[in-house]
Amino acid sequence: MNVRTDFPVQFDQNGNLRHFLTIKGLPAETLTGILDIAHSFIDFGKREIKKIPLMRGKTVVNLFFEPSTRTRTTFEIAAKRLSADVVNMNAERMSTTKGESILDTVRTLEAMHTDMFVVRDRESGAAHLIASHLPEHVRVINAGDGRHAHPTQAMLDMFTIRQHKAEFPSLRVAIVGDILHSRVARSQIHALNILGAPEIRVIGPRTLIPTDIETMGVTYVNNMKNGLEDIDVIMMLRIQRERMDGQLIPSEQEYFNRYGLTEEALRFARPDAIVMHPGPINRGLEIASSVADGNRSVILDQVTNGIAVRMSIMAHLMGGQEKSKWN
Amino acid sequence: MNVRTDFPVQFDQNGNLRHFLTIKGLPAETLTGILDIAHSFIDFGKREIKKIPLMRGKTVVNLFFEPSTRTRTTFEIAAKRLSADVVNMNAERMSTTKGESILDTVRTLEAMHTDMFVVRDRESGAAHLIASHLPEHVRVINAGDGRHAHPTQAMLDMFTIRQHKAEFPSLRVAIVGDILHSRVARSQIHALNILGAPEIRVIGPRTLIPTDIETMGVTYVNNMKNGLEDIDVIMMLRIQRERMDGQLIPSEQEYFNRYGLTEEALRFARPDAIVMHPGPINRGLEIASSVADGNRSVILDQVTNGIAVRMSIMAHLMGGQEKSKWN
Amino acid sequence: MNVRTDFPVQFDQNGNLRHFLTIKGLPAETLTGILDIAHSFIDFGKREIKKIPLMRGKTVVNLFFEPSTRTRTTFEIAAKRLSADVVNMNAERMSTTKGESILDTVRTLEAMHTDMFVVRDRESGAAHLIASHLPEHVRVINAGDGRHAHPTQAMLDMFTIRQHKAEFPSLRVAIVGDILHSRVARSQIHALNILGAPEIRVIGPRTLIPTDIETMGVTYVNNMKNGLEDIDVIMMLRIQRERMDGQLIPSEQEYFNRYGLTEEALRFARPDAIVMHPGPINRGLEIASSVADGNRSVILDQVTNGIAVRMSIMAHLMGGQEKSKWN
Repeated sequence: MNVRTDFPVQFDQNGNLRHFLTIKGLPAETLTGILDIAHSFIDFGKREIKKIPLMRGKTVVNLFFEPSTRTRTTFEIAAKRLSADVVNMNAERMSTTKGESILDTVRTLEAMHTDMFVVRDRESGAAHLIASHLPEHVRVINAGDGRHAHPTQAMLDMFTIRQHKAEFPSLRVAIVGDILHSRVARSQIHALNILGAPEIRVIGPRTLIPTDIETMGVTYVNNMKNGLEDIDVIMMLRIQRERMDGQLIPSEQEYFNRYGLTEEALRFARPDAIVMHPGPINRGLEIASSVADGNRSVILDQVTNGIAVRMSIMAHLMGGQEKSKWN
Repeated sequence: MNVRTDFPVQFDQNGNLRHFLTIKGLPAETLTGILDIAHSFIDFGKREIKKIPLMRGKTVVNLFFEPSTRTRTTFEIAAKRLSADVVNMNAERMSTTKGESILDTVRTLEAMHTDMFVVRDRESGAAHLIASHLPEHVRVINAGDGRHAHPTQAMLDMFTIRQHKAEFPSLRVAIVGDILHSRVARSQIHALNILGAPEIRVIGPRTLIPTDIETMGVTYVNNMKNGLEDIDVIMMLRIQRERMDGQLIPSEQEYFNRYGLTEEALRFARPDAIVMHPGPINRGLEIASSVADGNRSVILDQVTNGIAVRMSIMAHLMGGQEKSKWN
Repeated sequence: MNVRTDFPVQFDQNGNLRHFLTIKGLPAETLTGILDIAHSFIDFGKREIKKIPLMRGKTVVNLFFEPSTRTRTTFEIAAKRLSADVVNMNAERMSTTKGESILDTVRTLEAMHTDMFVVRDRESGAAHLIASHLPEHVRVINAGDGRHAHPTQAMLDMFTIRQHKAEFPSLRVAIVGDILHSRVARSQIHALNILGAPEIRVIGPRTLIPTDIETMGVTYVNNMKNGLEDIDVIMMLRIQRERMDGQLIPSEQEYFNRYGLTEEALRFARPDAIVMHPGPINRGLEIASSVADGNRSVILDQVTNGIAVRMSIMAHLMGGQEKSKWN
């Protein structure tokens, strides 16, 4: 698939957000608007009745070409709390048909008057491809496409940072791990840049860092000691165990010793630094259990915020940008 | 399973439609009644809130012994738009138990006070068998059983024809492809006959046509040129690629050359002929991409109509035959 | 997992039922209270609109580490009739991580503000482990854990007995089959003892009876003739065909001859004895078809009651103990 993946397809002709495909290129006000509305959904999650009629009678299709129970569940819960009807489809991607089957599937579903697609695929560009071929009124959310982007994850990370820390222009942030294969890291870097974080460092073995990483406005540091110095926010990435083939990473133990976030490593950062992870965590591989469960960890806050942020994004796309509508 | 598959089990003692198992033997008024009500559900699909309380508090079980994400999804969406609770069951059929397990499963589900079963099975007669063994108030819809019938598909096809064409008594219809293995074709032929289509032709290689096809009230033609002459409606069938073993069909390319619906073949039909296909389509096998996506194709209309027609059938079975109830 | 499985974690500090993990140790009033409320849900199942708003806006997660379509469906239907949003998760249990992954999964789901977990696992103690690690307000129901307990099954059995028979203190009950591997039998024995059944007999081949069975307050009898004498309630267990390896059971035919519930065997019991089975039944293995379908069988009543009893348990856990709330 040869699809442009950073372009105005996200907006309609009036400049309203239509799809949520990538954070790259979004104005800061759009991000801030989503975070503000998400804030109102946080209290909502603690209510007796966690249900508002914002998407009542709308049909949301979770179209997952790559299985991910966890992410699928967060979108399912978010949509149901907005009163939408949710249809889960774990579609098999037929690689031989070169993207054609994906479009036939989507056109068919759209013909059933579905209103929103949440798309996950192991290839970059799937959500963009789909969004480019759907009529005006249908919305698409990218729930992770290949190595490209995972924008809702990055938004919930930004929300969590804002919840625990000062404003972005005063924050130093480190992203640690396998940047090369991480759609999460790409989306995080875009979001942090747009929101004005003055210093973003990426830390990890050279083999797991894209060669042109500096062009994204970040600094590469090859060890935890220097990398975490003066850092306010530590964003750990999940290591895929299948990378552990001796080529990119020597061994689990050596990786943990050099780049795992242990109590010792945590001391390099600021004493009030927060620890984040998109989950699911590999205890003893990229993070020590005591740190993951410790008082600096905001990992479970990220999960909670994930529902609120996804509700906010869905609400924005459905045209309910005025906060008054759901308060 | 030795079950009669064309009989009054579809009606209760007052002559009301109780199950929707096969089109064979239904009176024309029943078909027309379903199509009329489906019409009111078409606009409904474009509404802001696509939800009516007709089946609120009812439980619909999608009992699929043969996997079919697409068909299951249409029934799921239709039932949810009627406000029913939907439970999806991808049951494994234990062939060794000779149908007994299927009945134990169904009796168990019925004991949970479920109200409707949507049944799909790769053997003919499954939906009939189930309907014959359930108490009075439970409804069964056949979502495709073996080579026997796929009556809701045929009904949405009839709806689509009525939407685009004159009345049935003035229409010439061609069904093209693998008639032998097609439950869709069987149901289409019954429906067209009942609604009064004066001429139905089946086109395809002799090896894919039942030997007694003329007894169904259709004419067999072995080539597209003669078969499509003066035709108003072209109904393509999906070719199962597993038939391509060199015995029934020589090769994909040869099949496409002789029976594929290309731009050239389309010219044999009337200039305003419509092109239909139950989906999913095999581009370049039974139909050319340009025809499938062309302005004569009503394939996506079929999908849209499929929701409305299934809602109408469900509404009829639930006893809501009076149109006033859901307008 | 080394977890205590019979302890006060089921209650909060005010003595209200918080989780439903095991019947062992519950007071008789708790069981009776659940059965009383379930009674009001029985009529409810026959209503036109089978839906009450008791759990509206609550999120129930069906967390099944062992697949069980049937049990999952009953909980799904029960929760939906209480108006809850239901999320089904067929989670794979990673045995290598020794329970750690299960807790990370559950903590993650809890962080999404889910309200109730229905847990099924092939290892004993899973539901207890989860309940011990969740915050105060989250509820856990054990839907079967290893050989340990299946308390909702036992409760629906008690309901069914009460529906058809005199009070428990006058009843003689026999449990027949593979007691050794049966979580159902363990929970039934606890419930019958708590409710005051004066005589409980277990019947089966010695190889399928725990050696210390008498300590549970039951009598072992090795044949149907003596075992069923004067019995009011016969509770059959399902035989797992995988036990049929010639070690524990000689052959299917011999098992059926000696311990199958045939018409002949049934004559040993009281003439008004009822026949129960948790399903799915193995016809011709542990029970004859004529008995399973006969007029003494209450097997389908058990299924119907299963929905009402599970609704009652969910309602109790959500704090709606006062009957007035849902009448």
